[in-house]
Amino acid sequence: MERVAVIGASMTRFGQRDAWIRELLAEAGQACLEDAGVAPDEVEHLYVSNMASGEFEGQTGVPNALAQDLAAVPAYTARIDQTSSSGGAGVYAAWQSVASGASEMTMLVGGEKMTHRSTAEATDVIASLTHPVEYKHGVTLPSFAGLTARLYLDEYDAPRESLGKVAVKNHKNGLDNPHAQFRKEVDLETVLESPVVADPLRLYDFCPITDGSAALLFCPESVAREYTDDYAVVSGIGGATDTHVVHERADPTTMGGVVNSSDIAYEMAGLGPDDVDVAELHDMFTILEFLQSEDLGFFEKGEGWKAVEEGVTDRDGELPINTSGGLKSKGHPLGASGVAQVYEIYQQLIGEAGDRQVEADVGLACNVGGFGNCVTTTIMEARQ
Amino acid sequence: MERVAVIGASMTRFGQRDAWIRELLAEAGQACLEDAGVAPDEVEHLYVSNMASGEFEGQTGVPNALAQDLAAVPAYTARIDQTSSSGGAGVYAAWQSVASGASEMTMLVGGEKMTHRSTAEATDVIASLTHPVEYKHGVTLPSFAGLTARLYLDEYDAPRESLGKVAVKNHKNGLDNPHAQFRKEVDLETVLESPVVADPLRLYDFCPITDGSAALLFCPESVAREYTDDYAVVSGIGGATDTHVVHERADPTTMGGVVNSSDIAYEMAGLGPDDVDVAELHDMFTILEFLQSEDLGFFEKGEGWKAVEEGVTDRDGELPINTSGGLKSKGHPLGASGVAQVYEIYQQLIGEAGDRQVEADVGLACNVGGFGNCVTTTIMEARQ
Repeated sequence: MERVAVIGASMTRFGQRDAWIRELLAEAGQACLEDAGVAPDEVEHLYVSNMASGEFEGQTGVPNALAQDLAAVPAYTARIDQTSSSGGAGVYAAWQSVASGASEMTMLVGGEKMTHRSTAEATDVIASLTHPVEYKHGVTLPSFAGLTARLYLDEYDAPRESLGKVAVKNHKNGLDNPHAQFRKEVDLETVLESPVVADPLRLYDFCPITDGSAALLFCPESVAREYTDDYAVVSGIGGATDTHVVHERADPTTMGGVVNSSDIAYEMAGLGPDDVDVAELHDMFTILEFLQSEDLGFFEKGEGWKAVEEGVTDRDGELPINTSGGLKSKGHPLGASGVAQVYEIYQQLIGEAGDRQVEADVGLACNVGGFGNCVTTTIMEARQ
Repeated sequence: MERVAVIGASMTRFGQRDAWIRELLAEAGQACLEDAGVAPDEVEHLYVSNMASGEFEGQTGVPNALAQDLAAVPAYTARIDQTSSSGGAGVYAAWQSVASGASEMTMLVGGEKMTHRSTAEATDVIASLTHPVEYKHGVTLPSFAGLTARLYLDEYDAPRESLGKVAVKNHKNGLDNPHAQFRKEVDLETVLESPVVADPLRLYDFCPITDGSAALLFCPESVAREYTDDYAVVSGIGGATDTHVVHERADPTTMGGVVNSSDIAYEMAGLGPDDVDVAELHDMFTILEFLQSEDLGFFEKGEGWKAVEEGVTDRDGELPINTSGGLKSKGHPLGASGVAQVYEIYQQLIGEAGDRQVEADVGLACNVGGFGNCVTTTIMEARQ
């Protein structure tokens, strides 16, 4: 089967934005069309990754609005929601639309508009994804992160500082990302002395609440060559769930969805963890970067923290992780995040990552919904 | 390319249900697995068609909940939303997942829980799909229906009674559908004298607000044969949008999304309107059955009303339309409706439609989002 290529990408500035979801989506969509040199009427399918435009701003039907705003009518459109991994689910949907032959030019635009709501309101919308029993007991995603971090530190004799170093590394990377919400370095002391949110995790272990959007254009590889010589292919992609009830998992320090989705993606790509040159992981909480880097097979179980300590995952390390700044510094507009991860991998693979550029032929993006409830792993390869 | 088969289907009773969205989805999903004789752990992809579980009952992440409730973890899952055509969009997503090779066994469950909210609240959630400018001026979907019906009657010299006859026909069909919300005949006089909602349309020109769920199982045809000798294939499927701003359409009596999506579906199937033996159309408002029956090419423009008058679309007519009772009598739980349309076509094709059974080798389902904002058309063929 012919491979699916990515031939264009864009993202808006992430942060507090004075624009509604429609405007954010249109901004990224327009920029992506321009990036690829594709006309709106060439788009056959248009997917929107978005968790909660209805809950956040009382607007639904945004895919239809976007189709008109981009002058892409009568392109088929739908919204893909997989909570915090809606972006990865959108990548999977877009890939499927091309791989199935249904569309020869598919645009994916992911976005979320959140900052006009209070932190409590936004957190409550996100918490609605948890199991009702957990929700009623107040076990929201940050609580799970705190409990899991405590267990991880105990189980693997990891120092608390190692978590802080994830934040320091990702903020450092974000400095060079013009789209990032926080373009400022933080030192370890600042992280470790920031206010406790869910012990042992503190404010700087968490990603912010963010507005933003990102977009990608997918087509068959044969079509890609008509537009550009520098593109990337999705060589492997897979998705998997874990239990909705988090406390029913056998080992809370293993994310089954990451293991299973990456198994599928690796097998499809004919590649393994050792082949990956750069990765974007879902560091909604610092602890998640450890778990994913292990469950993806980059490091042995319980050793992800050592890789960070030793600088392996630094931008100039052996396996740079979150060169974009990650969700931690770049921000986390739910529906956009998984799309922005692939945006970063794409930029790295085609050599357009500017000051963040690393050497990479193979990249991987791992987008996590809920607390590992659903995961999409995407492996891409450069074609030049 | 190998065709995608449907090997199992189910729907819950539609109506006012004392069950939350999770329970409704699990009820249909479980019944569908049993119908097909498929074990939960055989499901690779699990899609949920749902417009607004967050807005209606403050619960998101329902695909993850369903995966666990059905014991289908680690099956990949995502929610597909295309407002009132979420079900059709789910059918398209499920088809793509199999046609792309990503999954060899995909379950789609569509559902909505609405009746616990007041009619005003539910209407407001639905109205959030319209363009903000239209919404602010109070032009909701029923208003568009009234305006369009007036135009249609004027333009094509159709009598008001012909609209009423759609309601009469569909209620008569619904009598024999054990899952329908309203299992009662209505006579023309009752329809024509019911309270005005949006002149010239009256209460009985509208579908009700409904709770319910429906499910389908998709796999490659070669896999289907391992399970059953009686199945159906999706031989054509297509989706298309029209403008989000309804008043910008050149001819309000033509639904561009229906024309364009069916063009794609017919071409893929190598079939035309004359080949269709039975159809489920999106009769959210009676006028929509006329428009779709014309825009799908069943009848000339402006002649759909005559077909109803002449009994062509009756159950024993030449082209039975809405043998299920349609949205009108069966009910319209947003995310379930497009799935339930395909459920009916599937039952007709495999000869399991009971008292509603007609002779059919080829069936078509047309699911309309918003006021024709986005449409999915699915053509299926019997295999025995």
